[in-house]
Amino acid sequence: MKAGVIGLGAMGYPMALNLHRAGLLASFWNRTPARAEALAAETGVAAASDPAAVAAACEVLITCVSADADLLEVIDALLPGAHAGLIVCDCSTVAAGTAREAAQRLRHAGAGFLDTPVSGGVEGARKGTLSVMAGGEAALLERACPALEAISARIGLLGPVGSGQATKAVNQIMCAGIGQAVSEALAFGRAMGLGLDQVVDVVRAGAAGNWFLDHRGHTMIRDENTIGFKTRLLVKDLDICVDMARAVGGSLPTIEGLLPQYRELIERGHGDEDHSALYRIKRRLFPELE
Amino acid sequence: MKAGVIGLGAMGYPMALNLHRAGLLASFWNRTPARAEALAAETGVAAASDPAAVAAACEVLITCVSADADLLEVIDALLPGAHAGLIVCDCSTVAAGTAREAAQRLRHAGAGFLDTPVSGGVEGARKGTLSVMAGGEAALLERACPALEAISARIGLLGPVGSGQATKAVNQIMCAGIGQAVSEALAFGRAMGLGLDQVVDVVRAGAAGNWFLDHRGHTMIRDENTIGFKTRLLVKDLDICVDMARAVGGSLPTIEGLLPQYRELIERGHGDEDHSALYRIKRRLFPELE
Repeated sequence: MKAGVIGLGAMGYPMALNLHRAGLLASFWNRTPARAEALAAETGVAAASDPAAVAAACEVLITCVSADADLLEVIDALLPGAHAGLIVCDCSTVAAGTAREAAQRLRHAGAGFLDTPVSGGVEGARKGTLSVMAGGEAALLERACPALEAISARIGLLGPVGSGQATKAVNQIMCAGIGQAVSEALAFGRAMGLGLDQVVDVVRAGAAGNWFLDHRGHTMIRDENTIGFKTRLLVKDLDICVDMARAVGGSLPTIEGLLPQYRELIERGHGDEDHSALYRIKRRLFPELE
Repeated sequence: MKAGVIGLGAMGYPMALNLHRAGLLASFWNRTPARAEALAAETGVAAASDPAAVAAACEVLITCVSADADLLEVIDALLPGAHAGLIVCDCSTVAAGTAREAAQRLRHAGAGFLDTPVSGGVEGARKGTLSVMAGGEAALLERACPALEAISARIGLLGPVGSGQATKAVNQIMCAGIGQAVSEALAFGRAMGLGLDQVVDVVRAGAAGNWFLDHRGHTMIRDENTIGFKTRLLVKDLDICVDMARAVGGSLPTIEGLLPQYRELIERGHGDEDHSALYRIKRRLFPELE
């Protein structure tokens, strides 16, 4: 199988490396050429001149971009190279409706589409242990499996195109709410005068244990938030979630309460930090210790 | 070493069984005699006639009761049997101040005290894999270790008496906030028409992974909340947390927003269910599906 990647960001770049380790990486492209050049140097695989060239060279094409408009732009740009043997697996986080739109544009060119957003952080992308939330036809997923298995430890098919993104929305709501629980609890622990490194270690071994505490607990208490998932991208995802909830007449009070706190973080210049930077806000719930 | 247990509830009973498996269980007592009789039948160890008899027979005495007043009552009742070789390890969840009061009463009798609240659920109590959050003197903890190791997978010493309870408060704040994140996210997923068993399995493998989703995800979506941590006990713990936060001039907005939801659950007759019953409330954020 020949696989390609479009979008070599914090997630896409290590995913491409794992495809290369599996012997599958045939082509790739990135909007900022420097990232593609770095990957070419690291793998010996040549960068493509444009998205259509990646599509033409691949059976499975993984896209991993930041926003809904970026995805549709990339889909349109790769269409000239699309063919009946091509399956585009979009690992970006976009609205379910955007996934359905992408699938439709590719269908006209005879190519297949799966929405395959992922979770597991940059660590999961590096280790190839991501969780893939797939939406689309089972037969297409089966064909795409060798590529998806090279980047993940678990793949779930949740339903038709869009179901992967709906599940990713569930995932993001949960991640944000957990981030709030952890950062508010640790701010409380700080106010109690506890040694937070020890608290993180003992609490993570019990019923409050969670990925976020395991991977961000020790760094967030030092305001080290450079590695991880950018706050401004989480806000983009959560805005999608709130829109999806409202579209069915519902609401997400926990997320609606969180968004102003994240927006304040962005205004204060922390938008490119991991969302564990929320601890900066939660600390202010307590008077500063002497 | 001879160990004893006072309080054979959902946590205390399996903890006593693990002490017995380690060859340490010498005595025990429970307010409701039937539980003590059941443990005597299961272990062949005789139940004591009163708390003082347990204290007299032990070097390490684990107490595991439901509320602050119960703990101080048990401490007073065991004092006639207290001796210089005795360490009381209180695994209940109470206020840090109550732990300090218990330590003082025992000190007058020459006995030692550690606050050693635990986390890990009834599953952790059964498997002997609890996380112990200890407060008190390191030398006492070292002496008590054989008994605590029989019930736990991890023991952390957080500081002087009361520090274990302060850390348990951090733990409960985190547990409750995670419970809210998970139940609100799954209510959203239900409204999106997703198959929630599949969602639980794929989401738990990513960055939203957490103990609560692992152990309560598949049951909460069926309103099966019989096993676990009773909502009314979590409310009792969270009231302590809010009081502790206010005592230092702080606040816990996430918990203050959750408490009315839990109280509503109790009013509706779900107080003895695991707090994953919160999903019953969160479902109402979305109009019922056809």
